[in-house]
Amino acid sequence: MQDNLKNLANIDTPAAIVSLQRMQQNIARMQQRADALGVRFRPHVKTTKCADVVAAQLDAGAAGITVSTLKEADQFFGHGVTDILYAVGMAAHRLAHALDLRRRGCALQILTDSVEGARAIAEYGRAHGHAFEVLIEIDTDGHRSGIKPGEDLLLDVGRVLHEGGMRLAGVLTHAGSSYELHTPQALAALAEQERAGCVQAAERLRAAGLPCPIVSVGSTPTALEAASLEGVTELRAGVYVFFDLVMRNVGVCSTEDIALSVLTTVIGHQTDKGWAIVDAGWMAMSRDRGTGKQQRDYGYGQVCTVDGVPIEGYLLSAANQEHGILSREGTADADIVARFPVGTRLRILPNHACATGAQFPAYEALAADGTVQTWERFHGW
Amino acid sequence: MQDNLKNLANIDTPAAIVSLQRMQQNIARMQQRADALGVRFRPHVKTTKCADVVAAQLDAGAAGITVSTLKEADQFFGHGVTDILYAVGMAAHRLAHALDLRRRGCALQILTDSVEGARAIAEYGRAHGHAFEVLIEIDTDGHRSGIKPGEDLLLDVGRVLHEGGMRLAGVLTHAGSSYELHTPQALAALAEQERAGCVQAAERLRAAGLPCPIVSVGSTPTALEAASLEGVTELRAGVYVFFDLVMRNVGVCSTEDIALSVLTTVIGHQTDKGWAIVDAGWMAMSRDRGTGKQQRDYGYGQVCTVDGVPIEGYLLSAANQEHGILSREGTADADIVARFPVGTRLRILPNHACATGAQFPAYEALAADGTVQTWERFHGW
Repeated sequence: MQDNLKNLANIDTPAAIVSLQRMQQNIARMQQRADALGVRFRPHVKTTKCADVVAAQLDAGAAGITVSTLKEADQFFGHGVTDILYAVGMAAHRLAHALDLRRRGCALQILTDSVEGARAIAEYGRAHGHAFEVLIEIDTDGHRSGIKPGEDLLLDVGRVLHEGGMRLAGVLTHAGSSYELHTPQALAALAEQERAGCVQAAERLRAAGLPCPIVSVGSTPTALEAASLEGVTELRAGVYVFFDLVMRNVGVCSTEDIALSVLTTVIGHQTDKGWAIVDAGWMAMSRDRGTGKQQRDYGYGQVCTVDGVPIEGYLLSAANQEHGILSREGTADADIVARFPVGTRLRILPNHACATGAQFPAYEALAADGTVQTWERFHGW
Repeated sequence: MQDNLKNLANIDTPAAIVSLQRMQQNIARMQQRADALGVRFRPHVKTTKCADVVAAQLDAGAAGITVSTLKEADQFFGHGVTDILYAVGMAAHRLAHALDLRRRGCALQILTDSVEGARAIAEYGRAHGHAFEVLIEIDTDGHRSGIKPGEDLLLDVGRVLHEGGMRLAGVLTHAGSSYELHTPQALAALAEQERAGCVQAAERLRAAGLPCPIVSVGSTPTALEAASLEGVTELRAGVYVFFDLVMRNVGVCSTEDIALSVLTTVIGHQTDKGWAIVDAGWMAMSRDRGTGKQQRDYGYGQVCTVDGVPIEGYLLSAANQEHGILSREGTADADIVARFPVGTRLRILPNHACATGAQFPAYEALAADGTVQTWERFHGW
């Protein structure tokens, strides 16, 4: 079989299908947001870990990338991306790896939110005659890491870095609690809180005589609902490139925007229960049940035709490792065998695109003409 | 750094650590069970997808392996394993792949539970002059696929295969609902139901003049609690090789038997909340929250010292992609920074070893002398 003859009817299942049309629309939408808000856009590539997707993001105007592991930095640097922000607090044992990347020409920026972390960076940098470029992580919504904008710790960390000879590059925050909201008003308010807190932190550093050129904010929901990014220089977002059912419930995309789905085959039935058994279990969908806490619970995913049209009321209701149980919500479908005979191909929209994608060694990129092309993604640390 | 100098202090984090001592104990325990019950043991390798682990299982006396994907069959056949049972209902589009494996010398057995499935196998086999070796899947606990032992469908499927020229190899069942139980009495009762149902199906086939040499049953909990396997020829189990917190809650292992853990590094704190932030998020642990429905909820995992000793009351309470939030149950630990300073290495016992292992490209096998050796595992379909 020649590569250019691959399509949704002849590739093996399960497979992670990316609708190129939807992906390109999602990329254009976010880039337009960043452009309209007057900030650089630095996509978070942890969602896809795929050079082809990232090339599309950069082609659309993205300025550099955000990564969650140094393996992502290694891989994308290998693909020619040099402007890379590692947006997880720097562990001392990874400084040698970071230095190696920088010495090979990667403009890697690193992150810290503690005096101990800042000291470790400064000491390692001085010992190796190198000025790391460091951002301070700011906590604007209490959901994870970072220093609150008003804490004295902010200036302490800034001084340790600056006086220790490092390049204090700026401040960074991520309002990850936006995933728990579901109205435009609440998202806009959180976006403003994220912006204001991060700008406040930058101004405090500058008032103390410390440099702070970069003010970096973002999450997919706040990026899409922010009214203003005054004082911000850079926006980050990740999952927007594919979207998913969690984002649909948050209210920042529609089901028709979701670019990632899992192609699956019906392999059996339990007629009396109204179940079709498919070959997409949790190994394919991931164990992510993010919609379970939202106003609309999709189980392990929304069932669609092979052409991607949602089949209202049919969900992947349960999952074992390589078996998914497909059923109708509410009452059992007595016609399940006739509706979805053995061998039927279906597509399942996932709860969480980052988690589902990570289960696959590659995406199958689906073009408008129905052909698919394999796009590798990487795995591990 | 030479490979033989790797240990838990110098490898990068997160990493999937396998305690060789515990793994060997778990392997020996299950093999002894099968030997005592007078049946062959065919481990399910979907848990580990790792040739080194499977070699240890075969060395201990296992007779062949069980797989959940044809990729597993390909990989282990490539490692010299020829006796392979593919224990997921056969999809017609995979018959060419199965035939190729068999023609290359792999004694691959396949599975079906429908007349349509049996017909597809028989037609493809006849068209290619090949007699596939086929088991019929039996449903003994209503949790997933299979034909109920008393259904007429059982004989219909048997006849389609046998009269269609295929080798009707036997019957197979998996009492996966055992994961929902937690007393020895309930597990022993389910094990007996699993045994009796599968033997009944075999006897019905034989009474109808159909061959049924193999009677294959098993799940880790029922395998360990079965009082008798009379009439059964073969036992299967997977997760027993590592065990996990779900199995600890089911009651078939202790915390001290769990052979898989995730090595992680403390990268920050939120002092006022009593949080330590670690570099094992859901990408490392998986999104599996299997203990969330059990009598003891471990969040995303039980925190242990780097030496593997559980630290009572400390859990990975939440997880983002590359961040884990470690906290004390109940009241916040005001001394979290002093207890777990930045840079501290810890190990996290997982909810579900199959799901956590799948997040890693390799295991780090920890020997009694503290050295670790990298064991590759594979990924995808």
